[in-house]
Amino acid sequence: MSPAPLRILGLDPGLRKTGWGVIRVEGNRLSHLGHGVIAPDEKAPFSERLLALFEGISAVVADWSPDEAAIEETFMNNNAASALKLGHARAAALLAPAKAGLPVAEYAARLVKKSVVGTGAADKDQVAFMISRILPGSAGATADAADALAVAVAHAHARTRGRLAA
Amino acid sequence: MSPAPLRILGLDPGLRKTGWGVIRVEGNRLSHLGHGVIAPDEKAPFSERLLALFEGISAVVADWSPDEAAIEETFMNNNAASALKLGHARAAALLAPAKAGLPVAEYAARLVKKSVVGTGAADKDQVAFMISRILPGSAGATADAADALAVAVAHAHARTRGRLAA
Repeated sequence: MSPAPLRILGLDPGLRKTGWGVIRVEGNRLSHLGHGVIAPDEKAPFSERLLALFEGISAVVADWSPDEAAIEETFMNNNAASALKLGHARAAALLAPAKAGLPVAEYAARLVKKSVVGTGAADKDQVAFMISRILPGSAGATADAADALAVAVAHAHARTRGRLAA
Repeated sequence: MSPAPLRILGLDPGLRKTGWGVIRVEGNRLSHLGHGVIAPDEKAPFSERLLALFEGISAVVADWSPDEAAIEETFMNNNAASALKLGHARAAALLAPAKAGLPVAEYAARLVKKSVVGTGAADKDQVAFMISRILPGSAGATADAADALAVAVAHAHARTRGRLAA
């Protein structure tokens, strides 16, 4: 008997744009359910932008009822000021599903690319192309939403591997 | 007629320990209401630690019904990895009052010290000493809680200046 179908929410966090994507996993079959981008008003005060991210993702969680969430680990450049900002956005993205009781897995960007394209050195266009092949329903997804769907796919693959290995 | 009394929540965010303090402001009079430290289980997964911070501060907001919140701007060293972590903790601290509808003000550490001790170059011990004088009820506050009370005091001073200037 194959395991019960499962919904996974993928998140690609950013203060200006946070991509999200929801997929359905049934055994080895993946299908697209929805995707989008949350882009808080850039002129709003910092705390309001963070709150808009948190509330936006909370609404996605309420609308799509995912069972698990996955979020990309942040690309670390050496700029401490941008790392601090990104940390804020990432926390808002991570807290929304966590507060709803979902387990939140984290994957390095390299692992996400490897899982979707087959190489950790893939660029954004390759990821978007492969996502459109793996999840035909995702046509028209922007780069941020495609990245979020890619994190969800990576989590689906990791879960399958985990189950097979167990 | 003096303005209605007001409650201010001050926050000193950190992933290991987040200090909080609540003061009452009535005209020029400041008084201590409460303080504490939230220290999530360091062995818990990262998302659970963040959630514990967020839930802990949400509980403080519910218990003390502050009217406004103030949070210290983060000391920026050049380590991007620690800046990223601190960004997460700071977002959790900031989102809890923002979600409850409170305005959240931000103050640079230097300004907080100047407001409490009179010089932006004050050390932690001086801040703690002055807080124990300004807010006698805060005796026994740890350094993190004293820092949080200091942010609340800085906000009270900034509000008064703003009102006088208007």
